[in-house]
Amino acid sequence: MRSAKEYLGSLADGREVYYRGKRVRDVTKHPYLSLAAEHAAMLYRLQRDPNFKPSLMTVVDGHKISTFYKLCRTPQDLLTRSRLIEETTRAGSGVFNIVQAIGSDAIMALMIVSKSLDARDPGKGYFQRVSKFHEYVAKNDLALAVGQTDVKGDRMLRPSEQVDKDLYLHVTKSTEKGIVVRGAKAHTTQAIVSDEVVVLPTRAMTDADKDYAVAFSVPTNTRGLKLIARPLVEAESAKTPEEGMMSAKNIEVESLTIFDDVFVPIDRVFLLREWEAAGILANLFGLYHRFTALSYRQVIAETLLGAAKMIAEQNGTDSASHVREKLAHLVMYREQSRMAIRLAALDAVKDEMTGIVYPNSLWANIGKLQSNTQYMSSVQNLVDIAGGLISTMPSPEDYARKDIGPLMKKYLAGNAKMSAEERMHLFRLIRELTGTMGGVLGPAMIHAEGSIAASLIALSREYDFGSSRALIRDIIRKGAARKQRTRS
Amino acid sequence: MRSAKEYLGSLADGREVYYRGKRVRDVTKHPYLSLAAEHAAMLYRLQRDPNFKPSLMTVVDGHKISTFYKLCRTPQDLLTRSRLIEETTRAGSGVFNIVQAIGSDAIMALMIVSKSLDARDPGKGYFQRVSKFHEYVAKNDLALAVGQTDVKGDRMLRPSEQVDKDLYLHVTKSTEKGIVVRGAKAHTTQAIVSDEVVVLPTRAMTDADKDYAVAFSVPTNTRGLKLIARPLVEAESAKTPEEGMMSAKNIEVESLTIFDDVFVPIDRVFLLREWEAAGILANLFGLYHRFTALSYRQVIAETLLGAAKMIAEQNGTDSASHVREKLAHLVMYREQSRMAIRLAALDAVKDEMTGIVYPNSLWANIGKLQSNTQYMSSVQNLVDIAGGLISTMPSPEDYARKDIGPLMKKYLAGNAKMSAEERMHLFRLIRELTGTMGGVLGPAMIHAEGSIAASLIALSREYDFGSSRALIRDIIRKGAARKQRTRS
Amino acid sequence: MRSAKEYLGSLADGREVYYRGKRVRDVTKHPYLSLAAEHAAMLYRLQRDPNFKPSLMTVVDGHKISTFYKLCRTPQDLLTRSRLIEETTRAGSGVFNIVQAIGSDAIMALMIVSKSLDARDPGKGYFQRVSKFHEYVAKNDLALAVGQTDVKGDRMLRPSEQVDKDLYLHVTKSTEKGIVVRGAKAHTTQAIVSDEVVVLPTRAMTDADKDYAVAFSVPTNTRGLKLIARPLVEAESAKTPEEGMMSAKNIEVESLTIFDDVFVPIDRVFLLREWEAAGILANLFGLYHRFTALSYRQVIAETLLGAAKMIAEQNGTDSASHVREKLAHLVMYREQSRMAIRLAALDAVKDEMTGIVYPNSLWANIGKLQSNTQYMSSVQNLVDIAGGLISTMPSPEDYARKDIGPLMKKYLAGNAKMSAEERMHLFRLIRELTGTMGGVLGPAMIHAEGSIAASLIALSREYDFGSSRALIRDIIRKGAARKQRTRS
Amino acid sequence: MRSAKEYLGSLADGREVYYRGKRVRDVTKHPYLSLAAEHAAMLYRLQRDPNFKPSLMTVVDGHKISTFYKLCRTPQDLLTRSRLIEETTRAGSGVFNIVQAIGSDAIMALMIVSKSLDARDPGKGYFQRVSKFHEYVAKNDLALAVGQTDVKGDRMLRPSEQVDKDLYLHVTKSTEKGIVVRGAKAHTTQAIVSDEVVVLPTRAMTDADKDYAVAFSVPTNTRGLKLIARPLVEAESAKTPEEGMMSAKNIEVESLTIFDDVFVPIDRVFLLREWEAAGILANLFGLYHRFTALSYRQVIAETLLGAAKMIAEQNGTDSASHVREKLAHLVMYREQSRMAIRLAALDAVKDEMTGIVYPNSLWANIGKLQSNTQYMSSVQNLVDIAGGLISTMPSPEDYARKDIGPLMKKYLAGNAKMSAEERMHLFRLIRELTGTMGGVLGPAMIHAEGSIAASLIALSREYDFGSSRALIRDIIRKGAARKQRTRS
Repeated sequence: MRSAKEYLGSLADGREVYYRGKRVRDVTKHPYLSLAAEHAAMLYRLQRDPNFKPSLMTVVDGHKISTFYKLCRTPQDLLTRSRLIEETTRAGSGVFNIVQAIGSDAIMALMIVSKSLDARDPGKGYFQRVSKFHEYVAKNDLALAVGQTDVKGDRMLRPSEQVDKDLYLHVTKSTEKGIVVRGAKAHTTQAIVSDEVVVLPTRAMTDADKDYAVAFSVPTNTRGLKLIARPLVEAESAKTPEEGMMSAKNIEVESLTIFDDVFVPIDRVFLLREWEAAGILANLFGLYHRFTALSYRQVIAETLLGAAKMIAEQNGTDSASHVREKLAHLVMYREQSRMAIRLAALDAVKDEMTGIVYPNSLWANIGKLQSNTQYMSSVQNLVDIAGGLISTMPSPEDYARKDIGPLMKKYLAGNAKMSAEERMHLFRLIRELTGTMGGVLGPAMIHAEGSIAASLIALSREYDFGSSRALIRDIIRKGAARKQRTRS
Repeated sequence: MRSAKEYLGSLADGREVYYRGKRVRDVTKHPYLSLAAEHAAMLYRLQRDPNFKPSLMTVVDGHKISTFYKLCRTPQDLLTRSRLIEETTRAGSGVFNIVQAIGSDAIMALMIVSKSLDARDPGKGYFQRVSKFHEYVAKNDLALAVGQTDVKGDRMLRPSEQVDKDLYLHVTKSTEKGIVVRGAKAHTTQAIVSDEVVVLPTRAMTDADKDYAVAFSVPTNTRGLKLIARPLVEAESAKTPEEGMMSAKNIEVESLTIFDDVFVPIDRVFLLREWEAAGILANLFGLYHRFTALSYRQVIAETLLGAAKMIAEQNGTDSASHVREKLAHLVMYREQSRMAIRLAALDAVKDEMTGIVYPNSLWANIGKLQSNTQYMSSVQNLVDIAGGLISTMPSPEDYARKDIGPLMKKYLAGNAKMSAEERMHLFRLIRELTGTMGGVLGPAMIHAEGSIAASLIALSREYDFGSSRALIRDIIRKGAARKQRTRS
Repeated sequence: MRSAKEYLGSLADGREVYYRGKRVRDVTKHPYLSLAAEHAAMLYRLQRDPNFKPSLMTVVDGHKISTFYKLCRTPQDLLTRSRLIEETTRAGSGVFNIVQAIGSDAIMALMIVSKSLDARDPGKGYFQRVSKFHEYVAKNDLALAVGQTDVKGDRMLRPSEQVDKDLYLHVTKSTEKGIVVRGAKAHTTQAIVSDEVVVLPTRAMTDADKDYAVAFSVPTNTRGLKLIARPLVEAESAKTPEEGMMSAKNIEVESLTIFDDVFVPIDRVFLLREWEAAGILANLFGLYHRFTALSYRQVIAETLLGAAKMIAEQNGTDSASHVREKLAHLVMYREQSRMAIRLAALDAVKDEMTGIVYPNSLWANIGKLQSNTQYMSSVQNLVDIAGGLISTMPSPEDYARKDIGPLMKKYLAGNAKMSAEERMHLFRLIRELTGTMGGVLGPAMIHAEGSIAASLIALSREYDFGSSRALIRDIIRKGAARKQRTRS
Repeated sequence: MRSAKEYLGSLADGREVYYRGKRVRDVTKHPYLSLAAEHAAMLYRLQRDPNFKPSLMTVVDGHKISTFYKLCRTPQDLLTRSRLIEETTRAGSGVFNIVQAIGSDAIMALMIVSKSLDARDPGKGYFQRVSKFHEYVAKNDLALAVGQTDVKGDRMLRPSEQVDKDLYLHVTKSTEKGIVVRGAKAHTTQAIVSDEVVVLPTRAMTDADKDYAVAFSVPTNTRGLKLIARPLVEAESAKTPEEGMMSAKNIEVESLTIFDDVFVPIDRVFLLREWEAAGILANLFGLYHRFTALSYRQVIAETLLGAAKMIAEQNGTDSASHVREKLAHLVMYREQSRMAIRLAALDAVKDEMTGIVYPNSLWANIGKLQSNTQYMSSVQNLVDIAGGLISTMPSPEDYARKDIGPLMKKYLAGNAKMSAEERMHLFRLIRELTGTMGGVLGPAMIHAEGSIAASLIALSREYDFGSSRALIRDIIRKGAARKQRTRS
């Protein structure tokens, strides 16, 4: 198990990172990217914190490894995993900590799919490669990023139909030693502070798209791998610590991750031109990752709920009937995620070949849809309860002045039993949540882990209508039987 | 265990039942009320059906009793109970079968509350009375109705503030031998085919309302008890069996149940002027009954879902993206109830004094709110998918004619692979669900087991905001700490 | 101008009408169909009522004609037409009176389209035929039905792709004297009490579908025309007048209208194999008819609103904040239709060739979508406000009894200042609106005049995005300009 | 008419403005506050732009004045006023320009209310003071701010019930020469760049609150008036011009506006302790200002709509059915405001005493509620259509690099027919709209001009239920009449 210091020390390894037009040699020394590195490092610190529950350290076969890298073999394992994500998110002030969660999502999905491919053609040896990778990752306690979503170009065209064939990542050359890949993955979270970047296909493929059916992993400092980070506007815009309650310390950074003819050695190639498996892998990873998402999203929901309840008390409106109604909707928004998590774990499915379990797809999908579709109305409820001071309140620097500070304290007081200072903190936190961070949270809550439209269609397509069909047939059959009786 | 025949034979016992202006001496001989009696009798038939699962017959202490009357002592008991309600509803073509479910809801709530009252003042002996009643009911395999909702008069006034003091049921006289009560309960389901009517208070009371804090049970043929049944419009309006697929056979009937100075012997008085316990009992019964409701409501949701899916296939539209989206919403509508049932049972709470468990209130409340508030939009989804023929299709009698019947078959065909006849059955079933039965189902799905507004307020009032508050406080505390560091 | 008596006397003309398996020789003598005839006859009665405003009688070129048959030439004409529909609906207790409204919708659309066709090929003479038909209709003050919606079979196939080619109405033979048509139109409102049935194409056609591009009119008693009426469940189920406040007197009836090789003389053929005009005609008629629909729908919205307000007062809850919120939504539901009507008339478009105006399509579409999509939630608001007694209240016959009637009066009292009798009337009216009539109103409000999905797509497809595009381009252009300045 | 230069030159007049803890002596020289000053100055530039329509300059009684200061005497005047607000907002890249709009809203409301007060007691001379103020403002072409919303403290307490009596602005002293006031107004838009601050009461008052019933105006540099500006986070966070397409140039700033014992000369006191008029004035100003708000809000809606349509085209998804549906909802969001504006002007009400018209309250309220309640779901539609690149796209500075810029161009291309550069601009604009500006726009769209809950209650309270009541009564009356006939 490595320490936070070891982890942070390893990041200046020549990786090609850009931020606002500058090449960044050491992300840990950059004023904003260092926040993302420190956020990831928190995981290594918490591993050694005996008070942190559930423990981030587990002993498997006599070796201490991160609990994230323990393969899930029972529903209880999934519940523990969910709690781990929940508590690390809570420790990060409501900001998810992805660097071991997403990688283990990918590894479990890869294990199941590769085992199944090998069963058909044992010579390919995919499973062994994935297993060795898992061992390596666990033993070295690595931080992983996953690149799945391609940049996609025209959304109505399949990969091989695009005018520029590189708009989905694909294999351009393959030999016995390895493959060369070209393309770009969007929204790769925390890749700039990861040890390795795992790549998975973004969707189901056809035979014509088989060069696009590829999965692999490479160290983040691999030649040809370019990571262009998004601007961390939420952190940059926090002129004072009070304006960045969440994002001035805890933040994750996405990059446009470009594979400019990157070579992948053959033992890190986990899927190669297996187009029939691409969709299965994409979906199975998606399922694990949606379960992960529900686990951190409930904490985001909790920030909305807690902030709404506390500002309502400050405003003196928490007993007004319309405020209560909005609070009840925020309660439901949070608890619906928890319902889905619980049941997705309890009804987990065991893959027979590997003994690994994966979350129940129906519950995970329902939970995800509720989380995606009701986020903005939850924000509306929070903003509605809080009031316009969210955006119009003066700055912390004004409050620090001796002349106007006391006037602010006087005039921004709410419920007399509470402190005006706490009220101001709450307003600023809500502004952050719904404003500067809102510009990141909104798209993430709506889009991350697949679009709403796709999920709605999936839900109706995969659902087992058997029981409801049988009920209707039975009602009609009985009705018809009565008819016969009546007429005879 | 009595037979369906014995049960039906016992109903002409002098009970005072009215229907459309006529006194009905034997409900089993009445063209419409007999449907409600036969529906209830189905429970007794299913008790003896070895193929019916879960079994309606259980052995407790060496005695065979209805599974409904087995007290729930574990989460699994609650799950079995829920399945029992689900399957009896399914057997009733989507119509709930209440006569042992609601009574056992009441008995369990009464046991817990009476035990707690006796603990404070053992002399009152409430628990013993309730226990004896439970034994009597189980041994004789009775059908019970519960009257809870008072007619209420002006909704803004408390019981004792009403102009007419009888608008909530109350005690007008009490002696050692018993009490006399006056008032009326609305919406008493299946009272006209019950053996006993159990009465519970409708809400929390104050000291001023203590005469209204009363719970008891009386045989349905007790003198002074008058049952005025609602008109069974859904059954009356089905001129042909095809037009009453559900309601021409399976139906439950509500009555306005008037207690016109009814005497209750003291051993059947379960709560007397214990105003502090009235709200607790009302809520606890409500909680059990909401759990019951979720269990049958998921089957109603299933009728909407199955009908929507099958008519979409008939219309040839089931792969259209907007139809899929509506089907997905119908899937969610059903599955949300199942989520709430599962978790309300798994997180059940054990009453220490009696060892009886009750469902978890948070999950039951959330499930109920989803069920109440999204019913009408689910109906809209079904109607939207089905199309206008729901209401404009000609009658079964037209289809039976040799001249125009074949033309109807020709012109009402949908997807060529399926039968026009099935399509017509589906349209009629949907018309019934959303039209004649809709007039009963809509108000029931929106109102039964408490109003939407009250639930929203309850959800926000009872919720434990501890975790979300702690999260917000922690975020703010850390922010403030950073501030100190920054400034120093 | 004919009298109601003359109109009713003319209906036993050999027309082939079926109801519940019986051929009906004289609809005015049938217990239920006579209601529909009387409802239509009301228009002729109101023509002579000097107090009815706006007047149903207008003098055009020295002839008295029904105001409905006056061609609209100004926005004010459209507003008057809307008021006419509103007030005749109000006079019909909230039930639309279609028999001159829909026919004039069709005539105006036919005039504009036929004029345009003739302009391209004057020899066809379509416009002259339509004009003569208009004259004939106006002079004889006829009642018209319009058949537009075909039965459609598999909804994913075009007319000529259906397995049975008759599933859309089409021309099977054409000579100089006329044409023969075969097919069936669904949901033809009031055809059984009309003088003529006008037929229009249901959608845009391609060259392959040209036999389906046909419009014409025939007398309702034409040989081969078969009208199979829907069962009037709402009227049949009203055992007492109080249970059919609306539908025991005012009702419209739809039929499945079958054209079993019907001959149409050439001077009544308004469009023949003009496939390019089919979609234009379908849309233009649809536009007129949506304007008509908004005009009667606002009165249906008014029934929901008035009933909700009055029952809230009776229940004593009209000042509760959640009830007020629901009332406000009902107010909006009604007023949104009125907004759309006003603007659709004010922004009417004049057809240059004929001088006839048609409603503005944007406002009519928006109004229609609001009306369709928010009907069920409006019903939910009404049911939520009213309470469960809607469905569980005893019958009027019970109230008429001397023993239990007074008990009902006592126990069904609400707000003490109002009468229990009015409260019962209100509950029954709401039951009718949301139950037995609900089975007709729901599908009608959701489906009549085109599906929700089609309208949403139309709204985005036809909308002029010019102004919003220009704004975005302007913002981006200015941003780019600033960039240049900044960098230089 | 003064020039932009004159206006800007007049602002360094000693006014007491604070921004981020610093006293700002000349706002026009401040890096961020100058943006707000320049934005306001745009109005003076547009006055002289002959191409700007409708003209911002009007001749009244031979004097050229700003069109904003022309009193509205006809519906057409209101429509012109609305267009003026719309086009100045459009010229400001979607950002409202308030400094003459809100002041004229206040002046018209004050004129009507003061005239009515004087009618009762002519000696008070309120109307004359307001008229003189209007003349002065128009003649000098002033920029005005209005302070209405008090800071309010505990929202459940009335002004005089607050622990700190200053939490609503009130009169602390009054003499013949003038009054002294103390208190603070929140969210005072553009006060820091205004010539005068007009103060109005925030709500209806009772006799106990009469010291709070006060309206007046003072120059912005009056002694004791302190303006603490909100931090302009949206502008501060735009590191490059492309990231501040809207807010790096066009911005309005709110302040906490503190009246620390400010003296108001008597000729500027427009309402003094007239508690019965306070609510009327608050509502009438609110009504004018809601009409103003609808006029600028439709342009904000247009930014969402235009951005959504253009990014859908770029993504190649604009013909997908679910995208079309979302676009249709965005179309409706915009057009509903336009409907309300048109009708609120057309149905304007003329105040008999002054001849000034005010917008129709029903339409203005409905429009406002639609605008408030559907803003967040409109943002959701935009974000859903656009995709996650809104937040994860790299910076403009990265694009400017020669090494990675071309890779960004390659990989961020969408629809091949359009330019990747435009796509990036669109993503950035959407990020701004929904992120950094979203933190201001969201609260403003939900809260500005009154809360949703208050509006819902107002809508149900003020509505004329007469017509709907009459309809229901008529239906019931006719039903009762039939009953009589039936029975006799």
